[in-house]
Formats: sequence, structure tokens, C-alpha cells
Amino acid sequence: MAGRPVIGPDRFALRLTGAAGLTAGAGLDALLVGVGSDLRYLTGYPALALERLTMLVVPARGAAFLIAPRLEVSSARACPAVAGGLIEVVTWDETDDAVALLVDRLSARLGLPSSGAIGRVAISDRLWAMFVLRLQAALPAASFELGSAITRQLRMVKDPDEITLLRLAAEAADRVIARISRGPLVGRTEAEVSREIRERLVDEGHELAEFAIVGSGLNSASPHHEASDRRIQAGEPVVFDIGGALDGYCSDTTRTIWIKGGDDAGRGADPDPDFAKFYEVLRTAQAAATAAVRPGIACQGLDATARGIIEAAGYGPQFFHRLGHGIGLEAHEDPYLVTGNLEPLPAGSAFSIEPGIYFEGRFGARIEDIVVCGPDGPIVLNQSPTELQVVSG
Amino acid sequence: MAGRPVIGPDRFALRLTGAAGLTAGAGLDALLVGVGSDLRYLTGYPALALERLTMLVVPARGAAFLIAPRLEVSSARACPAVAGGLIEVVTWDETDDAVALLVDRLSARLGLPSSGAIGRVAISDRLWAMFVLRLQAALPAASFELGSAITRQLRMVKDPDEITLLRLAAEAADRVIARISRGPLVGRTEAEVSREIRERLVDEGHELAEFAIVGSGLNSASPHHEASDRRIQAGEPVVFDIGGALDGYCSDTTRTIWIKGGDDAGRGADPDPDFAKFYEVLRTAQAAATAAVRPGIACQGLDATARGIIEAAGYGPQFFHRLGHGIGLEAHEDPYLVTGNLEPLPAGSAFSIEPGIYFEGRFGARIEDIVVCGPDGPIVLNQSPTELQVVSG
Repeated sequence: MAGRPVIGPDRFALRLTGAAGLTAGAGLDALLVGVGSDLRYLTGYPALALERLTMLVVPARGAAFLIAPRLEVSSARACPAVAGGLIEVVTWDETDDAVALLVDRLSARLGLPSSGAIGRVAISDRLWAMFVLRLQAALPAASFELGSAITRQLRMVKDPDEITLLRLAAEAADRVIARISRGPLVGRTEAEVSREIRERLVDEGHELAEFAIVGSGLNSASPHHEASDRRIQAGEPVVFDIGGALDGYCSDTTRTIWIKGGDDAGRGADPDPDFAKFYEVLRTAQAAATAAVRPGIACQGLDATARGIIEAAGYGPQFFHRLGHGIGLEAHEDPYLVTGNLEPLPAGSAFSIEPGIYFEGRFGARIEDIVVCGPDGPIVLNQSPTELQVVSG
Repeated sequence: MAGRPVIGPDRFALRLTGAAGLTAGAGLDALLVGVGSDLRYLTGYPALALERLTMLVVPARGAAFLIAPRLEVSSARACPAVAGGLIEVVTWDETDDAVALLVDRLSARLGLPSSGAIGRVAISDRLWAMFVLRLQAALPAASFELGSAITRQLRMVKDPDEITLLRLAAEAADRVIARISRGPLVGRTEAEVSREIRERLVDEGHELAEFAIVGSGLNSASPHHEASDRRIQAGEPVVFDIGGALDGYCSDTTRTIWIKGGDDAGRGADPDPDFAKFYEVLRTAQAAATAAVRPGIACQGLDATARGIIEAAGYGPQFFHRLGHGIGLEAHEDPYLVTGNLEPLPAGSAFSIEPGIYFEGRFGARIEDIVVCGPDGPIVLNQSPTELQVVSG
């Protein structure tokens, strides 16, 4: 697809330098980054999650290096940070002890007499226990902390290329929502529609269509319902919550529509009045929280803005999840818009705003946009209408 | 799809009882199972991997329970082990401390005066560090071990329903390999063909098409190459390594074909003689390792069987990965067929046999079948031919 920015070695050099500086500044000896979005952020390497250890080691002093199994070394060498000469790849063979190799290299890099002198390390938040426990066994004197303390400071503030990629992903998802909402829907199973959504996300340039929730009728009341063999009927709502990744950057948007009736019994020609009523409250709350976005507001303040409106209308118990989550290379990342998160919202952060109201056993609705905290207020990346769409067929 | 076995509550009851018995027998206080294949194996719950804690707690004594965030509780309740009344769901709200809730419940279940008296726990191997470190902080006196010590003993020995599901997944992947190998291939990019493979895996009943490696020409020499924008040409090999999951059970098969030439220059009408020669060695090695499968053989013995044949032909350095990996609910799981694994192969285990020979910068090949260790020898689930297929166009 034309127009997609490419994040080059210069940017990865800045990120790696930033991570090393924050690591040293926090008094840590090293940041150890396993496969996942931190690794991709720092190196551009979209490594496979495997039981074989792949790990970026960012020492507090000295050059970073990447531990990689021989089987993955061609892919590792192709990533921008390695191809650009920023980090060295240290390869291990199938029967080597990769953790021993890692701690020996790290202590040498730090100029320490042995790995026993390594005192504090940070590990990436989604590193598997199998690696955590092996690292802890190899560094029995070290204390272990979460790497997000370092990486979140970098990753929360998106650069312009990242925002462009989030926008392209959001626009692609919007086009899929628009196309799917035109139908046909009635008589098809949620699973069939879900599959069409996934294929359309790929058609629109996503390399990964991670989720395509289709919740019809009473399934609309279950926020993380996925898609079942239930057939969509006239006279009920359908929640679409869809997303994936485009060049690694995630889309995530939700719209709830009403399927018009007009069947032989004439039922459900218009939205159920109870539904229409709470939907308008939901829409008002979602818009108000979005309008409240500005640098420095407490993250929980955005949640409180939406929740206050929903509670005042008497739907408080029916909005039982947080307002939203940060988004970037990970579908859910910092900052979280949740009660108790007093952190000031950083300029340049990107997150979902997605209140929902759910009546279990009956129906529910959710509206979700991805929003960037611009210097002067919200920049809304999703552009699908939020007015209740009443569609036929 | 008709004919798929459904694993019901009786089976989950046996698995949970088995896990509790092994936990107690190992002197552990509890097995803590996060989202992933261990959870699915023990409860049937295919939970989403989220930053919100979902965890099955199997105490050494007393009933197991499932910690779940409110947002997921409908899905959690629908899983066979909960719906069948085998385990209770303990729900936490968005601002609760789920880990504190967990350790309090666990110590009460064990009849201990406080969580400080919990001494040894096992955690699932792929539990994220964010949960490992929180559990370690909440149980500072406890030692942590990997849960696979418990679950591998159960999961390695597949029951007949699991073998049926693995067979259905393998047959589906075989049909995709057969269809793709008929072409057209020349002139298409690897990425285009990869996408077609993923769609066909879903058409064949996979709920997930996890990978579809298409390595053409020199990319065939990189074992974990995925799929690039390179266009497939006549007169070169293509490696297809494809798989996903069908009702949770994984497929994983590899075939390497030769694209016949016949272009204007007349080149590559037949396979390159060097390629044809090492391919036959590879095929012999793969068949010999398969034939050697029997209960009780050391896992490394199968690797040695294939490796010996490849080394004797002078291709030892070109076969630089292990022979294979177990497969089931996880694409890679125990047992691993690798030098150093002295474990006797259990009857009922399922694994890949996938030697490869790679000449970097030129070409390579791999052949992979899923094989079950039957009581009297190998049961080969993939049935695609392994003779070198030379295809036109």
C-alpha cells in the first residue's frame, strides 16, 4: 500500500539509546526484552514467539545485543536495527544453554567480574515464565522488575510515523465496519460474518486480523463474546468489535447497529425503545470522554467523565469495565483509562475510548474509537458515525 | 464439521483430578495456570490472553477454582469444566487486586493460616512476567517452579479423541498442500500464496491459520522464513510449512516441491541435480526416523537416526535444527526430539518429524509429518507424498 511510513534505523537508534539511558537512570544493570512488542519497538524485529530464547539485551552501559537461536538468525539479521548495524546478533545452537550465554555476555559487557555481580534487571512484561525462572536461576542474586517501567515511557508517546500507521489502521477498520454494516446480515451466523470481517481487514491491508467480535441479540450483552453459530435476526442489535495490525500497528474499533425488522410478523421495525434510550446515553458519554482528552488530565478522569454520565442516567451497574486502553504495537498497552490510574495523560499517547452498557440476557452496546492525545485536545482516528445505524436485512 | 469428537466434562474431571494428584504428589501447594493451552487442556476454556488476570488454581488439596475478570465471566462460565460444575469461578472487578484475591482464596482452600505459609507453587510455562513477578511479590516465601512438570505428564499422552482431532487437522492441512501444489505458482508472490494457504486452511475447518511459510528459491534455505514479496519462479524449489488449529488441536506439515522450468531459456526443466540428490537423502532420513518410532526409545534417538543418515551423506552442517517437537493444543510442546533429551518416548505422544537441509544463499528443503507413537510403532497422520513433486506453472 502506498503512503505507509517506514520506520528506519535512525529511529531505532534513538529508541535503543533512550532505553539504555532510562535503564542506567533507573539504576538497573540491564533491560532484557523477549519476543513481543517491546522487541519490535526497539529493533523492528517481529520475531516468532517460540520456546527457543530470543532476547534483546540492553545493558546500562555498552552496546545492546540480540540473542537469537540459529534457526531464526536470517530473520533476526534482516530487522532494521541489526541490518542498520545498531546491534550485534549472538547466535546459539540447538544444544547450547542460551541463558548461560546471555548472562556471560551481559556481565562482560558491563565489565563485571561475573554474572553474580549483576544486581537489578528489568524483563519485558510478557516474557514467558519458562524464561523468567531460568533467568532468575542464572542470576540468583539479582532482583527482577518489569521492563514496562522503561519501555512504557518511550512507547506511550507516539511519533508522527506511528500516529500515521495507527490512522491508516483505523481508516481500514472503518471501511470494514461500513461495508459489513450494509449487510446482508439477517440469517447469517455470527461466525460467518466474523470470517468476512477478518478477510476484509486483510483486503484493507492488515497483515493480521486478530479479532472480529460479532455479538448479536443477547450476545451483544457479553463484552468479550467472540462469534458463535447463532444466526443474526431482524429486530435486534449487533455489536462489531474488530481489529488487527497493519505494519504492526493495531486497529480496534466497535460499532453497534440495530437490524431493522419488517419480517412477516412486522416485529422490530424500529429499535427497541429501551435500547434506543441507553444507546443515546452511551453515545453522549463516549463523546464527552473524547472531548475531555487533553495532555495532563488524569487517566482516571476520562473514565470518570463517561462513567458519571452513564451513572446519572441510571446505567452505572451496566458499565462494568474500564473506559479504555492504550494502543500501538500492542492492542492493549499503557496508558489504561481506569479508576485508580492517576497518571497524567501524555501528549502523543493513543488509546481507545469505549464505554459499554450491557443488560445480561437481553442486549447491550458499545462504541469505541481510537483517540490520540494531541497538544490541544483529542485527535479521533476512527471516523465511522456513532449515531445508531438502523439497517435492513 | 461432522465427525469431530467433543471433549466433555468427564474428561476434564479426569484431567483436573490428575493435575491435583500430581501437584500433591510433587509436594507442591498448588498449580497456577494462566491463559493458554494448559488452561484449555484442564478446563476447555480458550480464554483470551489479556493483561487482566485469568488463572486456574489447582490446590494440592481442596477444589480447584478459576479466577476471572468480570468482563470475561460469561465466556468463563461457558467452558465445559465450569458449565459441568467441576470448578467454581471467582470473579474480580476492574479495580480489585486479583492476585491478592487469589492468594487469599488459595491459603483458605489449603487450610493455611495465611498466604505466607504457601511454600511451593508451579506456574504455567507461558505465564507472562507481569503475573509471575506479582505472584512472587504476593508470596515472598514461596518457591516457583514450572507447571509443565505437572501438565506435560498429562498432555504428552494423547487420548483417542485428541488423536482424532490431530488427524482431522493433519488431513485438512494435507488437502491444502495438495491443492496449492497444483498451482498456479509461477509469477505469484510468496505472500499471495501464503494468504491463499491461510484461507484454504480455514475453508478446511481450521479456526486459526497460524502460519503459512512459503519459501521460494533462496528463501527455501531459511527454515523460518515466512513469506515475502518475492515472486516464485520456474526452476526453483518452494518450501510450504503450514499449520493452524482445528478445535484447538494443531496441524503442522511441510512439503518442498520443485517448480519445473520450460521458460524461453529452457532452464530448470528438471530439478537441479544437487537439489535432487540431497532431497533424496532428506527423504530417506525422514522415513528412517519415522520408522524408528516406538514407545520407550529415547527422544534424542529419533533425532540421531535422521542426523546419522544426513551426516553420512555429507550434509551434517546443513541440518542445523532439531528433528521435531511435540504437538497438541500447542504447536510446539513436549516431547522435543533433540540431542540431549534422554526421555523415553511415551506411547500416545504426538510430534513432528521434520529434518531439513539448507544451503544458505542457494536453496533448501524440509519434509515434515505429524506422527503418533502407537503401541507398536509409528502412526503417521500426514499422508501427502514425500517423493519430490515436480510441478509446472
